[in-house]
Amino acid sequence: MKRPVPVVGLVGYSGSGKTTFLEKLIVVLKGRGYLIGVIKHTHHLVDFDQKGKDTWRHARAGADVVALASPNGVTLFKKFEADPAPEEVMVMSMSMAGELDLIIFEGYKKEKWPKIEVYRRGETERPVIPAGELIAVVSDAPPVGAAPYFGLDDAAGVADLIEKVILKKS
Amino acid sequence: MKRPVPVVGLVGYSGSGKTTFLEKLIVVLKGRGYLIGVIKHTHHLVDFDQKGKDTWRHARAGADVVALASPNGVTLFKKFEADPAPEEVMVMSMSMAGELDLIIFEGYKKEKWPKIEVYRRGETERPVIPAGELIAVVSDAPPVGAAPYFGLDDAAGVADLIEKVILKKS
Repeated sequence: MKRPVPVVGLVGYSGSGKTTFLEKLIVVLKGRGYLIGVIKHTHHLVDFDQKGKDTWRHARAGADVVALASPNGVTLFKKFEADPAPEEVMVMSMSMAGELDLIIFEGYKKEKWPKIEVYRRGETERPVIPAGELIAVVSDAPPVGAAPYFGLDDAAGVADLIEKVILKKS
Repeated sequence: MKRPVPVVGLVGYSGSGKTTFLEKLIVVLKGRGYLIGVIKHTHHLVDFDQKGKDTWRHARAGADVVALASPNGVTLFKKFEADPAPEEVMVMSMSMAGELDLIIFEGYKKEKWPKIEVYRRGETERPVIPAGELIAVVSDAPPVGAAPYFGLDDAAGVADLIEKVILKKS
């Protein structure tokens, strides 16, 4: 399937500082005016909304789609019987957003799109992402490998790289 | 805008038993094989996911769309600056679902679609929905008005009515 929007993956084990880094990266990219989608994958079952809430009850009763509309946004849940393909989640995100400039995938290690790996000093055998998919490493550890290296605070540097390599901004 | 799917509204004050009734109605309609969407409106600001969760952090950082994909479903959040129009939420729900047989709106009192009002004994001046929009009353109080009347447990009866009046099933 053709990708309707540029994508990049952010990969790192829990505790690597990945989410903190991603927050900074989102803020920088939003500051540059981009429309950003973030898609995270989890292996856990997810309840819609908090236990006992009306929308949680609607989902538990078996509704195929549950939506909660509020003055600051819309939250939707679509039930699946098995892990949805990332391409499908991307299309759903695009459908919701109208358009996006970039989708950042978090937690999809096996997909073949370009990836940024986040890891912390003290881990051995990093990075784990194959060199051909790795466009950057974000770490407080000494650089290894050929991929461009950024510190854990350098969201602006990574944003520059994304603009150049993924968004092909001249 | 043309409605791409049959809709019905469920209206009732908090504490009327509306959500409990809606749960029963969803179960009955799902048992009859329908694809059901539920759209609830709230006047409160809604956080995406629980405070501190990764996806909550993504949304707070400013991502325009945040998705969480899990083996049992996909949850999406799209940020808005003001209350989204119900028609827009409906289109988003349809985009996610592919197709739906019925969308049940909960908490939209002012829209002009056909409505079912739920209320409990002891309230005065019920129903509050104009007769022209009211297709049924669900209550433990004595029937008033001309709309068909159902008990709080009679989800099957209301489902029959929905099939006849809204879904035009022969």
